[in-house]
Amino acid sequence: MGLKLYDLAGAELERRFSPYCWRTKLALMHKGLPFDTIPWRFTDKDVIAFSGQGRVPVLVDGDDVVFDSWTIATYLEDAYADRPSLFRGEGGRAVTRFVNASADGISVGGIPRLIVIDILAHLAEQDKTYFRETREKRLGAMLETVTAGRETNVLAFRKTLEPIRTVLAAQPYFAGEAPAYADYVVFGCFQWARCISSFPLLLKDDPVWAWRDRLLFAFDGYARKALGYPV
Amino acid sequence: MGLKLYDLAGAELERRFSPYCWRTKLALMHKGLPFDTIPWRFTDKDVIAFSGQGRVPVLVDGDDVVFDSWTIATYLEDAYADRPSLFRGEGGRAVTRFVNASADGISVGGIPRLIVIDILAHLAEQDKTYFRETREKRLGAMLETVTAGRETNVLAFRKTLEPIRTVLAAQPYFAGEAPAYADYVVFGCFQWARCISSFPLLLKDDPVWAWRDRLLFAFDGYARKALGYPV
Repeated sequence: MGLKLYDLAGAELERRFSPYCWRTKLALMHKGLPFDTIPWRFTDKDVIAFSGQGRVPVLVDGDDVVFDSWTIATYLEDAYADRPSLFRGEGGRAVTRFVNASADGISVGGIPRLIVIDILAHLAEQDKTYFRETREKRLGAMLETVTAGRETNVLAFRKTLEPIRTVLAAQPYFAGEAPAYADYVVFGCFQWARCISSFPLLLKDDPVWAWRDRLLFAFDGYARKALGYPV
Repeated sequence: MGLKLYDLAGAELERRFSPYCWRTKLALMHKGLPFDTIPWRFTDKDVIAFSGQGRVPVLVDGDDVVFDSWTIATYLEDAYADRPSLFRGEGGRAVTRFVNASADGISVGGIPRLIVIDILAHLAEQDKTYFRETREKRLGAMLETVTAGRETNVLAFRKTLEPIRTVLAAQPYFAGEAPAYADYVVFGCFQWARCISSFPLLLKDDPVWAWRDRLLFAFDGYARKALGYPV
């Protein structure tokens, strides 16, 4: 029996946009583990109550229930130690935490202001009020107001990606010659946007675009085939 | 014969403040390699012309001449592979590049605006014109103007350290249970400021302060004993 992953979905069940769930899906692909995703909406709190909390990703592996994308990654690394490593050693595991924390900064600090109104537009009806209330509280403004300045704000956002470009000028992936979990955490941020918004975060001549493209095509184009926008 | 490191100095030869040289010095301590530092000023371009470029750190190891702090770190890791690892594996080496690039962001983007006027004050006379001209061009304003808003700007700077706090909430060092090169690159930023400025970048109740303190005391207090300010 394969693993099961509760995965955030929009109004269309096939629209899967959570950056954290994307981290986990690529980690599962990397480990070569078969898994099924179970579409889940923000307000389906009762459906994952068995995990003891209310957010996805939630991974069910036989009797093991694991939540929080970082915890899931370390669980997979240890439980499936004979499969390709997500971290390539203990130093990689420790330092990838910083990439993870920095990607959270991109997810929480940078991208929402550019795409949050598009998330709202793609949600199931029952999720819309919950989403607007929690996100407007977090962002301190109406979603329409937050997104209004995005044509200008995206220019500043692109500048914050400079450390990523420095890395990619020296090596093809965060994890070196081949991708690993450090890549998936950052990729998840961009895949989140791509699955939910037609607003172009990246320009085609940006090395970050080329790196993202390589990951879109990884695992037989798993991420590229996801319902989204070709931006 | 030990290694030799050309190390940026202020008017006082013992004031060594380059963030990049600090990365290298702690890397040398980590490897347990004996080394001598040679004080060097910004305008001593001819002194390191043998390296083929004009910046420190420059490491001389017998017949090998190595410059650029990242290149030096990988040189030391490979040339002294039997000594404690700076990266704890290939994954650690690859991902530490992102920490390195992010630390450059802190060094170049964040800290200069808070302390650059204090650097000027500590330079040897022959370096002052060079420093003012190159830094005012880079920062786009007079050094006095840049630093004038630091009481306010430091509040925003401290917020940018949030990913570091996330890491330190989970583990004592970037590299895990013990420090390694990922720690030294970030530490170098703060040690730079501490050696040249009495302006308090960090508050004592910040976990970043506690982490920095552990590194100040590492290697028999090597960094703590450096000429600087107790901030």
